[in-house]
Amino acid sequence: MQSPHQMKVWLEENHDDLFACRYRVKDVLYSQKSPYQMIEIVETFGHGRMLVNDGYIMLSERDEFIYHEMLAHVPLFVHPDPRRILVIGGGDGGTVREVLRHQSVEKIVLVEIDACVIEACKRYLPQTSACLDDPKVTIYVQDGAEFVQQTRERFDIVLIDATDPWGPSESIYSNEFYQKLTKLLTKDGIVVAQGESFYYELEAQISLLKILAQNFSKIHLYNYANLIYPGGAWSFAFASNRFCPLTDFAPQRVTEAIPWQLRYYHPGMHRAAFQLPNFAQALVGAYLSSSCHQSC
Amino acid sequence: MQSPHQMKVWLEENHDDLFACRYRVKDVLYSQKSPYQMIEIVETFGHGRMLVNDGYIMLSERDEFIYHEMLAHVPLFVHPDPRRILVIGGGDGGTVREVLRHQSVEKIVLVEIDACVIEACKRYLPQTSACLDDPKVTIYVQDGAEFVQQTRERFDIVLIDATDPWGPSESIYSNEFYQKLTKLLTKDGIVVAQGESFYYELEAQISLLKILAQNFSKIHLYNYANLIYPGGAWSFAFASNRFCPLTDFAPQRVTEAIPWQLRYYHPGMHRAAFQLPNFAQALVGAYLSSSCHQSC
Repeated sequence: MQSPHQMKVWLEENHDDLFACRYRVKDVLYSQKSPYQMIEIVETFGHGRMLVNDGYIMLSERDEFIYHEMLAHVPLFVHPDPRRILVIGGGDGGTVREVLRHQSVEKIVLVEIDACVIEACKRYLPQTSACLDDPKVTIYVQDGAEFVQQTRERFDIVLIDATDPWGPSESIYSNEFYQKLTKLLTKDGIVVAQGESFYYELEAQISLLKILAQNFSKIHLYNYANLIYPGGAWSFAFASNRFCPLTDFAPQRVTEAIPWQLRYYHPGMHRAAFQLPNFAQALVGAYLSSSCHQSC
Repeated sequence: MQSPHQMKVWLEENHDDLFACRYRVKDVLYSQKSPYQMIEIVETFGHGRMLVNDGYIMLSERDEFIYHEMLAHVPLFVHPDPRRILVIGGGDGGTVREVLRHQSVEKIVLVEIDACVIEACKRYLPQTSACLDDPKVTIYVQDGAEFVQQTRERFDIVLIDATDPWGPSESIYSNEFYQKLTKLLTKDGIVVAQGESFYYELEAQISLLKILAQNFSKIHLYNYANLIYPGGAWSFAFASNRFCPLTDFAPQRVTEAIPWQLRYYHPGMHRAAFQLPNFAQALVGAYLSSSCHQSC
């Protein structure tokens, strides 16, 4: 219980001195400099606990379900039989938690560069990390680019659950990385990558789409809105040589599989997420497969 | 051009001391206490000019097209022949600008309680207010509840372009107001009202839906995400005794009418906007017409 005279402590995320988001903090639970980044976990008044890497808010307990459901379930409900899943990044465990809901999944490999992220989340964010001990999950603490270079395993779906394309994630935003990635994907494979924002990170979004277009024949962008990423529309990029996420989507599989477990995703949200505003279509449409725009 | 040593000035919108949004300000252009509220217009570095009423950001030049397009075009493309439109609130003119794009529209009545809003926007926000001088537009500076009580005019569509349900907008969030409103709507009429947020203003959203359900047989909620309203999903409530906004929507009318003028709205966005996340459907679905959920 706070005294009315107690000081107010705010976590502030500043975006280029143009705007900033502030969250009132109850307590700083963890603060550690890893070899890759500063990792901090705070307890807020309005959004539960937050994971903050290098000052940028990665997730909050209040809304992480939105990001993780949309990253995992869109490709896993397009692929007809997803068995082997690779998650690059995502040391908090939220994506793995969602992938594990799919009964067809036999093995999940999580490749997180920073052991401190996993340790911090295991200790302070059980909501996302509890599933990391599941017997289907194998964790490698390794640079994603290095893993992709070395592994002989093959995967049906790869989820790039990464931070922005600077700092520890820089190596996985390159054509070279995706060239190697295509070799460990099965023929029907799907990649979904954290795809930035057409409002606030347009250059990074276009750069990613250009790389994907060099390595896959079908590229789509889908969107979600959560509470803690500014500006209301953040994207995932969907890439495959086989599947279109709308025409190859069989909604009855969702209803048969996990209708009651999810808080955000359902077949209608799946389709709706691929609708881009006209202005965004004008900005990034040239890098996307044309069939899906306005086809909902 | 700012000197690097010049002080940094921020506009902060605080939400119950749980979180806050800050925008860096170049200049305060207007600051005036009206009989109803404090009205301020600032020039920001990242979002153009902003209208701020009683400390709450109403619109920014950078993203106001999202709110205004979604408020106006969803009902105007559902109604087959919208001729007479009533806008309550909306003194900035953005909604009127979008309504005027529809060739069928013969008359728009704008009822704004606060003359200072209109004056300030005419002077400092031409992007939204320029259309207020259009010959099809009649402006009454009057309380919306009072206008609805007194007028003998009839309307095809009523757009409630109002602030949150406290302060100057309080009188138009009541059953009494909507009872009177139904009498000046044509038989096929549609009302769309600013519908708050299922994340941050759930109580206000449910309260509005309950009032609408007492006066209309078909109630739907649709959503948009802009840059300056926190949390990524804000709603409009759609109410009618005749039309379902999905099954009665004829997308070819959009393509025939104004395909190139809009920055956000298109038929796919129209349909997508009615998809609610599962958790939101669980919270507010009881107050909505059932036919549309997941029917996209």
